[in-house]
Amino acid sequence: MTLTTRLECIPPADVRLAADSAALLHAMGIAAVHLLASPGAGKTSLILRTAESLSGKVRLGVIQATLAPPAGPGPTPLDALDLPYVQVDTGVQPYLDASMIREALEQLPLADVDLLLIEEIGTLTAPAKQSLGEKVRVVVASLPEGEECPLRYPEPFSHADAIVLNKIDLLPALGFDRSLFYRTLRRLNAEAPVFELSCRTGAGLEDWGAWLVEQVRGDCGAN
Amino acid sequence: MTLTTRLECIPPADVRLAADSAALLHAMGIAAVHLLASPGAGKTSLILRTAESLSGKVRLGVIQATLAPPAGPGPTPLDALDLPYVQVDTGVQPYLDASMIREALEQLPLADVDLLLIEEIGTLTAPAKQSLGEKVRVVVASLPEGEECPLRYPEPFSHADAIVLNKIDLLPALGFDRSLFYRTLRRLNAEAPVFELSCRTGAGLEDWGAWLVEQVRGDCGAN
Repeated sequence: MTLTTRLECIPPADVRLAADSAALLHAMGIAAVHLLASPGAGKTSLILRTAESLSGKVRLGVIQATLAPPAGPGPTPLDALDLPYVQVDTGVQPYLDASMIREALEQLPLADVDLLLIEEIGTLTAPAKQSLGEKVRVVVASLPEGEECPLRYPEPFSHADAIVLNKIDLLPALGFDRSLFYRTLRRLNAEAPVFELSCRTGAGLEDWGAWLVEQVRGDCGAN
Repeated sequence: MTLTTRLECIPPADVRLAADSAALLHAMGIAAVHLLASPGAGKTSLILRTAESLSGKVRLGVIQATLAPPAGPGPTPLDALDLPYVQVDTGVQPYLDASMIREALEQLPLADVDLLLIEEIGTLTAPAKQSLGEKVRVVVASLPEGEECPLRYPEPFSHADAIVLNKIDLLPALGFDRSLFYRTLRRLNAEAPVFELSCRTGAGLEDWGAWLVEQVRGDCGAN
């Protein structure tokens, strides 16, 4: 297996749709951030914390992927937020694709959004290099997943533009070997910045927020 | 989406292969247990602990699925164990299928195995009702994944014959709401026994081991 194999399987129509979405988002000055993670790593908590800390600085929008639960989609923690969001049921395919994003964009008030967070289904095995039209890809890892998680699920870490290392408050309880994590990660990805934070305590949220604001400013500057 | 949709996509050849494997395993008095979990939930640690606690009681074999890391497969923690095991690179498909299991069985000294643990790739989004020929399916959940994990990833929990709830030692640090977890789980699966344990401290391993031994005895009794 080579890391390019899955990329080659992406239908050409999806590649075109993703390019369209990217052009639309760029034209509207919206930075889209695709969040990838294991189940329970804290994507939704991160969105809630980010909304809190960026309130009044940038206008947030959210696309959240779900696997339809048997009882149908229920209320989500995002309902509590006063921001535009769309929930996308990915159906039998357990990850987002370019056509789902395209449809979701049509339901969002894009003129009111600066930063669009796209929450993937919780999985590290979705095609990681496939473009949805996002500006950057972020892997949300968490301490309980272990120091060598990047080595066992190399694709998303290899192609990430940034890494969030969540649940840093569990460092004492878990005896997590931070330097082993970095050695493992840097074998796959030499450059992506890592944001150590805790959505529970709020520690480390500032640097992450500043990086997101940079993504938005970068887009505005290009217009 | 209905819960049966993915089942219908399984190629008939795979259904036949799985039935063949099931018949072979049954004839040889081997109980095969398919372990499903998120990345980092603790499948490998559970196998190591299980090998320890069942040593001298049942003869263990292991099939371990891996996504080939870019540097090629390296040593695994299972190398330290004195038991037959086969590592299966699932390639571009990020989960096991019946033909991979069939090939792996041919590489194992089946006459020396009573209990075969099959470790899936870390994912809760693989087709959960697909048979590989195993006797039982076990979901290994862990406290950091949250109380409502079953609701967000209903398929594997719905079709599980047992649930392991790992990292129970983190209960105080996480403030995990155990009764919410059970309420969530029981909406999907009314009967599967739950084994609360900690691979770190060893707590709760005995009940889990006893249940595995029952799976083996059940097979022997049927012969």
